[in-house]
Amino acid sequence: MYADIEAAAVRIAPYARRTPVLNEPRLDAAIGATLWFKCEGLQHIGAFKFRGACNAVMSLADDVANAGVLTHSSGNHGAALGEAARLRGIPAHIVVPEGANPVKLANIRATGATLHACAPTLAAREETAERIRVETGASLIHPYEDHRVIAGQGTAAKELLEAVPDLELILVPLGGGGLAAGTCLAAAHLAPNCEVIAVEPASANDGEVGLARGQRVESWPVDTICDGLRTMVGRPNFTILQNRRTRVLTAPDADTEIAMAELQRALRLAVEPSSAVVFAALKLAKSAYQGRRIGVILSGGNCV
Amino acid sequence: MYADIEAAAVRIAPYARRTPVLNEPRLDAAIGATLWFKCEGLQHIGAFKFRGACNAVMSLADDVANAGVLTHSSGNHGAALGEAARLRGIPAHIVVPEGANPVKLANIRATGATLHACAPTLAAREETAERIRVETGASLIHPYEDHRVIAGQGTAAKELLEAVPDLELILVPLGGGGLAAGTCLAAAHLAPNCEVIAVEPASANDGEVGLARGQRVESWPVDTICDGLRTMVGRPNFTILQNRRTRVLTAPDADTEIAMAELQRALRLAVEPSSAVVFAALKLAKSAYQGRRIGVILSGGNCV
Repeated sequence: MYADIEAAAVRIAPYARRTPVLNEPRLDAAIGATLWFKCEGLQHIGAFKFRGACNAVMSLADDVANAGVLTHSSGNHGAALGEAARLRGIPAHIVVPEGANPVKLANIRATGATLHACAPTLAAREETAERIRVETGASLIHPYEDHRVIAGQGTAAKELLEAVPDLELILVPLGGGGLAAGTCLAAAHLAPNCEVIAVEPASANDGEVGLARGQRVESWPVDTICDGLRTMVGRPNFTILQNRRTRVLTAPDADTEIAMAELQRALRLAVEPSSAVVFAALKLAKSAYQGRRIGVILSGGNCV
Repeated sequence: MYADIEAAAVRIAPYARRTPVLNEPRLDAAIGATLWFKCEGLQHIGAFKFRGACNAVMSLADDVANAGVLTHSSGNHGAALGEAARLRGIPAHIVVPEGANPVKLANIRATGATLHACAPTLAAREETAERIRVETGASLIHPYEDHRVIAGQGTAAKELLEAVPDLELILVPLGGGGLAAGTCLAAAHLAPNCEVIAVEPASANDGEVGLARGQRVESWPVDTICDGLRTMVGRPNFTILQNRRTRVLTAPDADTEIAMAELQRALRLAVEPSSAVVFAALKLAKSAYQGRRIGVILSGGNCV
């Protein structure tokens, strides 16, 4: 599986940014540990999602690619797929639930992708996507239940561990689980003693519940400002997290809002709530992490 | 002189960040050129100023360094000197004019430096600094009239030209001229055909006037939101710019405010007015730069 991440890294290298890894003494002091922030908000379209979408789009055979690509996404994956399709010169269709983050919608539009609105339910998303797939022959690139996407997302942790090989922990936000699963696969190979901890909003903790039960949660009430973390953890993603015995930390939205302001001030870059939740959870649990060397994947910078 | 920049690069390498160089298709489209942004807002203390201060502080002999360092600064150089002194374990005294940018003041305080308030005039700054110098024996590190500082600032353009060797132009903000002069020296050696253009606020254009007259302006009315660009161009700085026949572009503050918002949205990082002025000027003059390959030094990210 790690070979897929290596292949993805080579495939996306001409297109993706190698984002910076920043350490900031002020934030270290706030936790009592040494923190290395992988700044994926500086990735194209402002999120790690470009890695997975780019890997998937650039993997397609020419005749398949020419019919275009298709996805349903509340935001960053849609922009990522649109941008990857633009770079390959093929059409992209993005099914967008009503009420999505307007900054993320503008990012999708800026790539030249075709937007298709639908009701804000998973059923409506999947139905609309299926209709377009039949009409256009476009390839569906799922936001996270896709091994090409997972491998692409894993390149962020690969770069982080290349920059700081002796991390003891990596904290990563957990939504559908593309980034979290990719991070697990990268760390298992590159730093087997480095634990990966997934972080969810306390009010969207289907991953925490599922991993505790030993069974993936298919439906769970979510209500959070972290708009990138509202989906349930995907099937292959859950299996990867479960196999790695991944622990989950959570933080309430109120803490995430404070963490977001702190990160933006100290790092001088945009950090979206779905990324800031990790720092919020770390602050809440900091007594357990004194003196540790911790990687933090700041997944995106598309704030409302 | 380029040898000083090379030596500075080696000297600051253990401390300074190699900041990212970002290209963003949306911003290219706004100008009709290919732009490479050197993101110095992601440098320690949020500005290129750390480079020059760090080079100066790390150049001092131990017995001199132990008495501490001293400067007068409205902001970023003060924080930069404070941070460099903290890293070397020596005292720093920063003379700060009343009315300085509060974000920058907080940055100075965070380094543990001692702040000394004074009236917001150059005479008051210099007088207060001289008094502290006599009292403490600390070495004055001038914000820009210092060859160690100029050489340190030049490392930003060195990194930019190493990342993108075939730039045709580099645009750089012009305040006291530490960054602009360092950029001229770096470009003269690394890319002799690459023109360096300095950018000032239209309402703080002492550099433009002085270079047109062929004589440095010692006093000039300034009124601008670009708080890092209010000082007159320094003596050695002016000479370097003059020898390189540096052209100056300007932009009104109203355009700078719009440019700042555009850059922050597109790049997802904090850009202060003193940096955004460059993009504003480029937009105003864009008809002259169609299709060119342009480096832009975004000097800092400490917004109010």
